[in-house]
Amino acid sequence: MVIDIQKVLKDKSFIDKEVTVCGWIKTSRSSKNFGFIELNDGSSFKSLQIVLESNLENFDEVSKYTISSSIEVTGKVVESPGAKQSVELHAKEVKLIGLSDRDYPLQKKRHTMEYLRTKTHLRPRTNTFKAVFKVRSLIAFAIHKYFQENGFVYVHSPIITASDAEGAGEMFQVTTLDLKDIPMVDGKVDYNEDFFGRETHLTVSGQLEAEAFAHAFRDCYTFGPTFRAENSNTARHAAEFWMVEPELSFCKLEGMLENVEGCIKYVINYVLENAPDEMEFFNQFIDKGLLDRLKSIVEKDFGKVTYTEAVELLKESKADFKYPVEWGIDLQTEHERYLTEEIFKKPVFVTDYPKDIKAFYMTLNEDNKTVRASDLLVPGIGELVGGSQREHRPEVLENRMRELGLDVDAYEWYLDLRRYGTVITSGYGIGFERLVMYITGMKNIRDVIPFPRTVNSADI
Amino acid sequence: MVIDIQKVLKDKSFIDKEVTVCGWIKTSRSSKNFGFIELNDGSSFKSLQIVLESNLENFDEVSKYTISSSIEVTGKVVESPGAKQSVELHAKEVKLIGLSDRDYPLQKKRHTMEYLRTKTHLRPRTNTFKAVFKVRSLIAFAIHKYFQENGFVYVHSPIITASDAEGAGEMFQVTTLDLKDIPMVDGKVDYNEDFFGRETHLTVSGQLEAEAFAHAFRDCYTFGPTFRAENSNTARHAAEFWMVEPELSFCKLEGMLENVEGCIKYVINYVLENAPDEMEFFNQFIDKGLLDRLKSIVEKDFGKVTYTEAVELLKESKADFKYPVEWGIDLQTEHERYLTEEIFKKPVFVTDYPKDIKAFYMTLNEDNKTVRASDLLVPGIGELVGGSQREHRPEVLENRMRELGLDVDAYEWYLDLRRYGTVITSGYGIGFERLVMYITGMKNIRDVIPFPRTVNSADI
Repeated sequence: MVIDIQKVLKDKSFIDKEVTVCGWIKTSRSSKNFGFIELNDGSSFKSLQIVLESNLENFDEVSKYTISSSIEVTGKVVESPGAKQSVELHAKEVKLIGLSDRDYPLQKKRHTMEYLRTKTHLRPRTNTFKAVFKVRSLIAFAIHKYFQENGFVYVHSPIITASDAEGAGEMFQVTTLDLKDIPMVDGKVDYNEDFFGRETHLTVSGQLEAEAFAHAFRDCYTFGPTFRAENSNTARHAAEFWMVEPELSFCKLEGMLENVEGCIKYVINYVLENAPDEMEFFNQFIDKGLLDRLKSIVEKDFGKVTYTEAVELLKESKADFKYPVEWGIDLQTEHERYLTEEIFKKPVFVTDYPKDIKAFYMTLNEDNKTVRASDLLVPGIGELVGGSQREHRPEVLENRMRELGLDVDAYEWYLDLRRYGTVITSGYGIGFERLVMYITGMKNIRDVIPFPRTVNSADI
Repeated sequence: MVIDIQKVLKDKSFIDKEVTVCGWIKTSRSSKNFGFIELNDGSSFKSLQIVLESNLENFDEVSKYTISSSIEVTGKVVESPGAKQSVELHAKEVKLIGLSDRDYPLQKKRHTMEYLRTKTHLRPRTNTFKAVFKVRSLIAFAIHKYFQENGFVYVHSPIITASDAEGAGEMFQVTTLDLKDIPMVDGKVDYNEDFFGRETHLTVSGQLEAEAFAHAFRDCYTFGPTFRAENSNTARHAAEFWMVEPELSFCKLEGMLENVEGCIKYVINYVLENAPDEMEFFNQFIDKGLLDRLKSIVEKDFGKVTYTEAVELLKESKADFKYPVEWGIDLQTEHERYLTEEIFKKPVFVTDYPKDIKAFYMTLNEDNKTVRASDLLVPGIGELVGGSQREHRPEVLENRMRELGLDVDAYEWYLDLRRYGTVITSGYGIGFERLVMYITGMKNIRDVIPFPRTVNSADI
């Protein structure tokens, strides 16, 4: 029976026993009578050292196996004299599964992130991406675990949408019309002939749909892909990314902030506990100081400040900002980072933003100038989470929609939620990739998405 | 502090204590001096009975609150004399949160499923859909839990794709081109001006991308939305649905079948344990016999039969099929159901299908006629899971692709997986909605998707 390398590395009961393992050759070096292969089977970040001795039947052949070849090894597990690994495997028999071509593009040397982006199908085999995508997987699961343990219902909000949602950004159109021969009526596209009989797009947010479920299940969350057709070629923007959008009923903004803080801390703790090797790797090679930063976030209470106070603090700081600070502006990343890194030195919630820079569905405060919105700012990145208490008063909501010139008819269903037993709800959105970047220290969103989609780029 | 109704119902320590709960009125009836409200806050399937007595300050007003209104109730928890509920709440104070308009479309009476589909934003408030979407959420989580506990890495395969994948079906096009003014060059659409600089579609499967990850992580799974632009207006087809696609390296078909069986049983057990009230409801009102069927599936070993044997069995049965059975045909639902319901009377894996009815990437058997594919057939539904051992020999794979006239260049990256350390991998796909239908007994896919998308229908 083939044993996971992870088990061989961790379970002391294998010592002095004979086992069979399979894996890919990460490195191989040998002299005339002796050889070492680092074998990785994907079950653990760390590889198992295979020791080859010249009494191995096919020693000469095995020592020539190329990087990334797959092999099956039977041998004895022995405690390792080296400090680097706890055990090693003394090979008795080595069988070739698949020899790797000599032109394997990821030979043992440093490759740039840019180069690796041209090999998205192979880069998960490198240490960096093995760590990134394992941690991405753990973060996703930790999010589900957190919400499920707290009684939240997971909702799959629709990907194809006929509504423009919150006007949150440029949208991709979805169609089955033949682009070479678009049916037109009176100078307009005839959507009767399209698949859904109407114009449809890819969703930019599942929040409004989640609110419908929150009015039945109280607490729910979405976790799915969302899209922006924005021509932003930056390290933080992708056309396709995943969002987590929890929605809590009978819950004011303050209760929601507790939930946000609980979620972020839960996820970080889960990753620290379940991916110690990967996190050690990030700390050493990707972002020195990462572990200290994450640990301090888990230990400290998050700060809280109103937008109005925050603007005052930024003005008082006399810091040299590219964008000047005035009440009413949308805070820029430089302001957000200054607040969390220099002033608070920890994650901080900014609350009660001017209504003019926020969406229509947020609860209007009595000052009639600000809304019950809150962003969570974290050191090293700025905004990580954005949320708000929703406007639950049907008249106020409808007025606000008219004020902003929205098509009220298209939101009748959303207004229904307030007409038929309205309750106070609050909700937030976590940009999943941003959270992955934050926890891994990776600096480009393209490097935390398995197959990233950005302007002019949709390979594989 | 407001307490979840679920806790009040389950935790005996609340008995004789005063608590405050919030929720929506499911039903309300009252006489002159006495009233009862069924209150549900979404935290549990069961509602809490509120007892109103005429000494309540606003008794007259409260007894007139409309269905679906939201209220806050403070009162004493007392053991209930009725058999239907364990405890009830004797109201001391009732506060209105949001009165529901009298035209609430889901008054207390039976509505057809068709009608409820026109109210997707409200139907989660009904018993049926509260049960469906809670169980859907639990199934999703159970899937994650099963794979994570078994060391699988969760991969987000891309939604927008530039490849035609396996040619599995009609695709939706994704574009930012102005449909009224499509740029053309030499009679062809000029995709240089489109967002990605090329033609793109919505994915039909994440399998091939998952295989890339399986060659790094060994075991991985996708769980995300997939799309078919097929004009099938049936109870089993949706344009947007979720798929789970696990992929196992160093694993032959047999090992994969064990994993499938483990997964299905794990998920059913998880739901039976975590949603007893909902499952009882389905058993009573949606699909009598459901619980017995599910329990028997968990207890029995799944059967196994080759396609060739299955065809013989079907022929011998002399059953009256609409589509005659011959070696080489794609089994129809009637054949599948006959096999699992009449012949095996339990879930059964059919293996080794004719190569001509299966995809290019499946391992060719030595007979050169069949491939190492397997479908899992289950009583009441037919095919629930489809999978195969992948063709790991690069030359055989490439030959097969040429034989089928595929564009080999577009699959260079996929062939790379076999060039650089090929291993035996096997994988399968579970149509998530089909699994939800199977476990809930619901008969139409539109009724297990929060906001279904089908031909000519994409509301909200």
